[in-house]
Amino acid sequence: MQMTQSLIHITLIGAGNVGYHLAQQLSNAPVAFDAVFSRNPDHAVEVAAMVHSKGINHFSDIPEGSDLYLISLADQAAEDFIRIFKPKSGVVAHTSGSLDLAIMHQTMRPHGVIYPLQTFSRAKPVNFDAIPVCTEASDTNTLLLIDKVAHFLSPDVRHINSAQRRQTHLAAVFACNFTNFMYVAAADILKKHDLEFDILRPLLNEFFTKANLMDPWAAQTGPAIRGDQNIISTHLEMLNDLNEYKQLYRLLSTLIENRKESEKQV
Amino acid sequence: MQMTQSLIHITLIGAGNVGYHLAQQLSNAPVAFDAVFSRNPDHAVEVAAMVHSKGINHFSDIPEGSDLYLISLADQAAEDFIRIFKPKSGVVAHTSGSLDLAIMHQTMRPHGVIYPLQTFSRAKPVNFDAIPVCTEASDTNTLLLIDKVAHFLSPDVRHINSAQRRQTHLAAVFACNFTNFMYVAAADILKKHDLEFDILRPLLNEFFTKANLMDPWAAQTGPAIRGDQNIISTHLEMLNDLNEYKQLYRLLSTLIENRKESEKQV
Repeated sequence: MQMTQSLIHITLIGAGNVGYHLAQQLSNAPVAFDAVFSRNPDHAVEVAAMVHSKGINHFSDIPEGSDLYLISLADQAAEDFIRIFKPKSGVVAHTSGSLDLAIMHQTMRPHGVIYPLQTFSRAKPVNFDAIPVCTEASDTNTLLLIDKVAHFLSPDVRHINSAQRRQTHLAAVFACNFTNFMYVAAADILKKHDLEFDILRPLLNEFFTKANLMDPWAAQTGPAIRGDQNIISTHLEMLNDLNEYKQLYRLLSTLIENRKESEKQV
Repeated sequence: MQMTQSLIHITLIGAGNVGYHLAQQLSNAPVAFDAVFSRNPDHAVEVAAMVHSKGINHFSDIPEGSDLYLISLADQAAEDFIRIFKPKSGVVAHTSGSLDLAIMHQTMRPHGVIYPLQTFSRAKPVNFDAIPVCTEASDTNTLLLIDKVAHFLSPDVRHINSAQRRQTHLAAVFACNFTNFMYVAAADILKKHDLEFDILRPLLNEFFTKANLMDPWAAQTGPAIRGDQNIISTHLEMLNDLNEYKQLYRLLSTLIENRKESEKQV
């Protein structure tokens, strides 16, 4: 059976949000799952069922002989796992944005990274076609295997080294986590004056649509880039009873003004 | 002709982005434009043509007898205009998020505010159905007129006082202008490491879709709210050569951590 010979045998380590969606997406690909390991037995069984495999939750049950051991654990758990995991054969890969390729050297096996640049929630379906998958590997042969699996996930596979991957993850913290905190600030300001955050939703939609079409700096608007000191000092005064956001407003306005100045000098 | 009698006669002062879209939206409403004033003659003529009216660009040509003088100028220009504008009849209203209702007292006429909470670009069509229009007026009768015009713009008309309107505008600065600066930071970080901002677009889409469905604080994720000091200090180190963003990262992480702490104490 030639079909079977071409199957890539995978053991999935971790059945959290990332593991769940990777498994689901790979369930239609020419791969065979040898096992799905999770410390949470329910998760192991749930995700294993999705890929017609068996769920395991003991380290010692992890099978030998897989082509790829794909580790989709949280960073600290992944580091702990990699420290003690020494399979006799196969490639070891993790899916983290922050962990260096080199940490897998200690597994004594060829290693790689398959990092899908996306935020995953169990409940929400994911369109993998639009997800950049960042890959890296210890050697050319391993990269072939890693890229093959990455292409089963998405057409957008990018070779990115560990430093770049880490910086991408850092950039994502600004672009998502900190962005969200701007919404928190807005919601807190509104709440203090008996207003609902919902009043901003149409504005946010329009902003996002525009921001999506433009270079971020070209899209920058607001009092700081206009140099409108009147509005800025009024706003700072209005934040007297929300001192943490006053501090944030001041810093952000200064950074925007400085960046504008330095653009002029170039 | 009863139809004609029920028309509200408007003189539009200002033909910038806001004036342009207000005129366009009101061109289908039972209103008659007596004139469109702009210091830029081309803008005056362009917007006037849209509402079958005449464009004027001299202060002295502003007609008497309109029911409503609708001022859609930038804040400073609006203030300057209001200082010298003393019509013999009619209601005076502005469309600003930041200017107090009370500044129009000096026009010696009943006054109001029609503030469409949206960002407008000339080129981009606007769906007014999804725009909250915040209204306020000097007296009940004037509010009736103001609300009538506001309802020609959008079904979502909200009575909001000057302080609330100002706070809403401040919240919008956080939710749009500062949010955009988080994208700028992300783009700068990526660029420094030969990566394109585009790599983040699918992530941003997913983030925005989720954020749109949730209370902002409930949607907060990232190293700071997880209390992941490892990642935080790695990120700070990675920002050694982008000191402005290091400062920003540190402040934001502290604010997120503090807010989490204070939530616990409640």
